[in-house]
Amino acid sequence: MNQVLNDIRHNPLLWLLLFVPVVFVCQQLQPAAHTLLFALSILAIVPLAALLSQATESVAAKTGDAVGGLLNATLGNLTELVIALAALRAGQYMLVKASVAGAIVTNTLFMLGASFLLGGLKHHVQEFNPVSARVQAVQLFLATIALLVPSAVSGADAARTAAFTQTLSLCLAFLLIATYGLGLLFSLKTHRELFRGAEHTEAEELVWPIGVALATLAGVTVLVALVSEVFVESVQEAALALGMTQAFVGFIVVALVGAAAEMAAAFSGARKNRLDLSVGIALGSAAQIALFVAPVLVLASYAIGPAPMTLQFWPGAVVMMLIATLTASLISSTGRAAWFSGVLVLGVYLIFAITLYLLPPRVQ
Amino acid sequence: MNQVLNDIRHNPLLWLLLFVPVVFVCQQLQPAAHTLLFALSILAIVPLAALLSQATESVAAKTGDAVGGLLNATLGNLTELVIALAALRAGQYMLVKASVAGAIVTNTLFMLGASFLLGGLKHHVQEFNPVSARVQAVQLFLATIALLVPSAVSGADAARTAAFTQTLSLCLAFLLIATYGLGLLFSLKTHRELFRGAEHTEAEELVWPIGVALATLAGVTVLVALVSEVFVESVQEAALALGMTQAFVGFIVVALVGAAAEMAAAFSGARKNRLDLSVGIALGSAAQIALFVAPVLVLASYAIGPAPMTLQFWPGAVVMMLIATLTASLISSTGRAAWFSGVLVLGVYLIFAITLYLLPPRVQ
Amino acid sequence: MNQVLNDIRHNPLLWLLLFVPVVFVCQQLQPAAHTLLFALSILAIVPLAALLSQATESVAAKTGDAVGGLLNATLGNLTELVIALAALRAGQYMLVKASVAGAIVTNTLFMLGASFLLGGLKHHVQEFNPVSARVQAVQLFLATIALLVPSAVSGADAARTAAFTQTLSLCLAFLLIATYGLGLLFSLKTHRELFRGAEHTEAEELVWPIGVALATLAGVTVLVALVSEVFVESVQEAALALGMTQAFVGFIVVALVGAAAEMAAAFSGARKNRLDLSVGIALGSAAQIALFVAPVLVLASYAIGPAPMTLQFWPGAVVMMLIATLTASLISSTGRAAWFSGVLVLGVYLIFAITLYLLPPRVQ
Repeated sequence: MNQVLNDIRHNPLLWLLLFVPVVFVCQQLQPAAHTLLFALSILAIVPLAALLSQATESVAAKTGDAVGGLLNATLGNLTELVIALAALRAGQYMLVKASVAGAIVTNTLFMLGASFLLGGLKHHVQEFNPVSARVQAVQLFLATIALLVPSAVSGADAARTAAFTQTLSLCLAFLLIATYGLGLLFSLKTHRELFRGAEHTEAEELVWPIGVALATLAGVTVLVALVSEVFVESVQEAALALGMTQAFVGFIVVALVGAAAEMAAAFSGARKNRLDLSVGIALGSAAQIALFVAPVLVLASYAIGPAPMTLQFWPGAVVMMLIATLTASLISSTGRAAWFSGVLVLGVYLIFAITLYLLPPRVQ
Repeated sequence: MNQVLNDIRHNPLLWLLLFVPVVFVCQQLQPAAHTLLFALSILAIVPLAALLSQATESVAAKTGDAVGGLLNATLGNLTELVIALAALRAGQYMLVKASVAGAIVTNTLFMLGASFLLGGLKHHVQEFNPVSARVQAVQLFLATIALLVPSAVSGADAARTAAFTQTLSLCLAFLLIATYGLGLLFSLKTHRELFRGAEHTEAEELVWPIGVALATLAGVTVLVALVSEVFVESVQEAALALGMTQAFVGFIVVALVGAAAEMAAAFSGARKNRLDLSVGIALGSAAQIALFVAPVLVLASYAIGPAPMTLQFWPGAVVMMLIATLTASLISSTGRAAWFSGVLVLGVYLIFAITLYLLPPRVQ
Repeated sequence: MNQVLNDIRHNPLLWLLLFVPVVFVCQQLQPAAHTLLFALSILAIVPLAALLSQATESVAAKTGDAVGGLLNATLGNLTELVIALAALRAGQYMLVKASVAGAIVTNTLFMLGASFLLGGLKHHVQEFNPVSARVQAVQLFLATIALLVPSAVSGADAARTAAFTQTLSLCLAFLLIATYGLGLLFSLKTHRELFRGAEHTEAEELVWPIGVALATLAGVTVLVALVSEVFVESVQEAALALGMTQAFVGFIVVALVGAAAEMAAAFSGARKNRLDLSVGIALGSAAQIALFVAPVLVLASYAIGPAPMTLQFWPGAVVMMLIATLTASLISSTGRAAWFSGVLVLGVYLIFAITLYLLPPRVQ
């Protein structure tokens, strides 16, 4: 436990943990101050996500390579999953879908682009393992297609195709989870030597004792879930008050908040000229959301949601996911990067962010 | 002739030839048993396609490299062409187009993916010549664009653009055939050394005497034509009885049946670690259907069809062809494959197959 | 000045300068002979563009590498810019947009494809620097996305989204120009060694004294502007008389005319086995139009146009730009080319040209 407190003392990001109790107090005293609650819950989720990520890695480091890799890969996007589950339970399917699509686009474009830029400002040309980058880019491409098809096919005649879209989404969810499982088998077991670069570096961080790590994992997950509920309740009113469209909030704000901890790791890797780590986190995390978080949410909607959720996205979101995937494939196929690669990838992200920010509310 | 009989005796696939007379007898006795005739004609076409492919290769082996390669390339999809001509004569343009699009998607995704998977389960990492793979992927991309443009442009206002679509399809058909011819010149004559890998292995199979081969070629083509007619007549009623949509039958069933013989060759190549052969058959066959079979069908519709056929496809089919081409380009650009590459490509195929299977009939 | 006259004497292309006075005389005598004026102004613009390009290079050669490269890159598409400004002032926004989209497609497909074909007919296999090709392909991809988003988002409900499209176009214009500036910083300053291949060869042409070059630059720009005005005034009537759609004229004719001088340089480079030069001109010029000319025109429309111009294109134009970019990325990723690569790229261009030629006027 001392270790955890010590980590907190030396990591300015974790000082934000102060906002966790503040959120709950504020919710009791001012339940209608949506914009305030919205801002506070964002500030509270960021350090919790960082703690969650550190705890997951500590558990993973203790349980050996294969199981550890599995845990790390599966719990890596726990924050996004918990936020999305809170929105799911509240029946805010638009927000759930926007945050899934936004997480894919943010991880692929913003995290990758900013890593290239930050790394490239320090190092002239950086190299990374193109094999693992390509496997993840193709996985992401497959998942994007699975998310594209229900939207493309059932666009025209919503009423008649509702049952079809629902069955299709269920089948595709199982297909995606199966592919995700086989991908773990591939990268952690049968062909792990191809992914060497990214794995080895992750083990070097400070590791907590297993009991502390497990307790932190459980406790922090509960806290994230509670804060997420405040966040989901306040987001719609806050967006209105701040003049942001709901698409912008889900796509950009929620996605950046949910991925804050991973971003810190990816950027620090890029500065240390370990671009393998950054590319692995960015594309791996995006692939995981598409192949694992999205289908799990579809399945979870049958258990905890007011109605089954489908994989049918707003067409603009599908186009953005597809373009993000293509950009990542194009840019990562060489295994080399410089600062301008980062500018180009961030440019694509900015185009999307500007468009969503300006989008008139009704047209979404 | 003994050689042919000997081949038949040792190849369990060819025992299915028994179904050829059964189809004709059954058609006389039970002309209304559509589902039965549908199943029997599929079982009869598979071994005929295998014989056709063997006869073509035997003729090709006798006539020297350049002419042989030409023959092999041009008659390689004879089965698909004959089935499609039968559907064309019956005026079933939906089926013709679905089978063309389905053959491209099936060859690109299913044949390539299953080759990667079957080869990868036996060999850790397999290598293939990325140059010839890329030439074929780009050819396929060009052809897909030619098939995409008429559908994209004339979508909005069908009545007014009918004449335009027809003229455009005719021009594009000539352009595709010219590109196909120049592609043969390139791969068989001016730059044949780039395609060495795939060529050399095909010559090793058993070769029939030229007279036997030519006679088999002629006789079996007639048989395929006759069985195809039964198949085309029964397919619509059978699909209805089996609860399959017409899109699924054309796209998946017909395509798998027509390519059965090539698949056997591609899979056996992959198991023997000759992935060059498998990739060459899969992408070459898809490129050939797009660049040669599709435009020939457009031209043939002026001679034998009830009305001119255009290159305008159902938008979903265009999207699927485009995604299949992009997937093949992404996955084959490295010249290396492992079992998980196969899983990813097959995953895309499964997404399409599931969607077509579930698609409500009216929405097609 | 003798140098300029000498160049003119030895370059048959420049004999066409004779048509410059002919255009002005003819416009005075026969202001209604639109088809004649259209043809004459095309014949007059081609040699002016060649002079402009030679003058720019001479100035660039004198001012040292960095400033020279900047000048060369920024004034390289001066002809296209001047023609488009003339159309902008006349309020012909359809023509402006068609010529921008057409210049991107023509440079990417026709110039690149014809370079591959002409070079490949003389040399068996040609190599070029894939790094600079890829940087330019990705820049082009980014710019195409910026042009795609306003069209994709505001398609549905034109009236309500007009203000949104206008603001979005303005923001994207600034983003594109900023990216263009950073790209120059990258290729001329921080990472110039990656672009060595293309730079070194351009310096070898004959260089004019700086005074002559500057005077030519100024004088010829004025002449191009005057001739462009005649061209823009006559193009619509001429297209009608010649039975060509306006889309075809803007996309194909104007684009080919504007790029004539660069094409001469690119083709001559390809024949001399300096494919680096050809690929650099083709993709660099396309990227420049997308990242610099297009946004400058948007900004200029606020100053000299009758109304603000947006970046919203006809959907078909967006699809064509996207396909052109993808084709260039696919074909240039290897750094090798043969004559058939040229055939494939030209094939895609022909598909577009045929479609635009046949397109019924109302459906545009």
